[in-house]
Amino acid sequence: MYVKRDKEHIVVKLEKNEDLVEKLTQLAQEENIKAGMIVSGIGMLRDPEIGYYTGTGYEQKKLEGVYELVSITGYLQETTPRVHIHISIADKNNKVYGGHLLSGKCDPYAIIAVISYEKLSFKRVYVEKAKRMETEVYEI
Amino acid sequence: MYVKRDKEHIVVKLEKNEDLVEKLTQLAQEENIKAGMIVSGIGMLRDPEIGYYTGTGYEQKKLEGVYELVSITGYLQETTPRVHIHISIADKNNKVYGGHLLSGKCDPYAIIAVISYEKLSFKRVYVEKAKRMETEVYEI
Amino acid sequence: MYVKRDKEHIVVKLEKNEDLVEKLTQLAQEENIKAGMIVSGIGMLRDPEIGYYTGTGYEQKKLEGVYELVSITGYLQETTPRVHIHISIADKNNKVYGGHLLSGKCDPYAIIAVISYEKLSFKRVYVEKAKRMETEVYEI
Repeated sequence: MYVKRDKEHIVVKLEKNEDLVEKLTQLAQEENIKAGMIVSGIGMLRDPEIGYYTGTGYEQKKLEGVYELVSITGYLQETTPRVHIHISIADKNNKVYGGHLLSGKCDPYAIIAVISYEKLSFKRVYVEKAKRMETEVYEI
Repeated sequence: MYVKRDKEHIVVKLEKNEDLVEKLTQLAQEENIKAGMIVSGIGMLRDPEIGYYTGTGYEQKKLEGVYELVSITGYLQETTPRVHIHISIADKNNKVYGGHLLSGKCDPYAIIAVISYEKLSFKRVYVEKAKRMETEVYEI
Repeated sequence: MYVKRDKEHIVVKLEKNEDLVEKLTQLAQEENIKAGMIVSGIGMLRDPEIGYYTGTGYEQKKLEGVYELVSITGYLQETTPRVHIHISIADKNNKVYGGHLLSGKCDPYAIIAVISYEKLSFKRVYVEKAKRMETEVYEI
């Protein structure tokens, strides 16, 4: 992975066999991103593990093979877990699968764009009203 | 829903049971957004109603249950309807459905990012060449 | 197609029968875009040709009919091919198909948003480490 910046905009290239979740976590840490949204991303993913949130945890499934990454959305935050990513992917028959991304290796590569907000912070905290951990958005 | 801003960037958090279409309509009204694009969004939606445009209206279907929001795209404009939103969503088997979003409640929540352009205006107007109402983009 | 700008943000409207790949290629050329990411897009596409990259070329398929464009992602670059676009689209039953976009006509229209980075350049070049042509990201 390498990282290029232009003002609040960050573009990263992920190379073959790099895990998309691991590398965007590393991006959040190394670039000290307090609040970032993934605004675009293209490439291919091999053997992605995708989850569905049941209210208590993720029902997860490994999809074997290499898929076109057709959408990626989510955020980078100040607290652990540093990333929250949803994707949709297409197989060779153009059939689309999607959900919460748990892991997936780039193959051959991916280019992802993030907006890193200077004046915002995303943090996972306990929300009294919801009685659960959620990500909240703060102005800093 | 609450709204946070950093320059032209707007991030909103929608809470449980808030309707995504209603709340983004309210966002456009209360923040006086003349032209905004939805650039990212993540969360889950319950019982979304999704449409397919036939040329004269929407063929609509209610999908029961709770779905991972895997992509959201569209715009906020100055005229009614204040929003135009397309989504794709995934069920617990990672199967993906998509189309024009008519309604859908956040469950447990969603975080949506918008770029609000200062120098542009989107308006739904009658377009002589197309002989129909369409959204047009203006510099202001 | 017409083009409107606000700082680094570009919004284009594509009219009926305009090909999405051709027109975004023209956008990259005429606006002299060195590096741009497609951050949002909405509309409908007729008879899209969608590909799956096999490692040596694209397995391609033409999907007949008119589809809701539910996600679009990718980039505009300085070298040929000027665009790289992945999409997902939904049919009247809300079924979603996706992949690398080879061609597709807007019907009735589409609105696409791009961020054009002033200080970055995307170029397709031979990458020694990967032993293949890839898009690389440069600071300029």
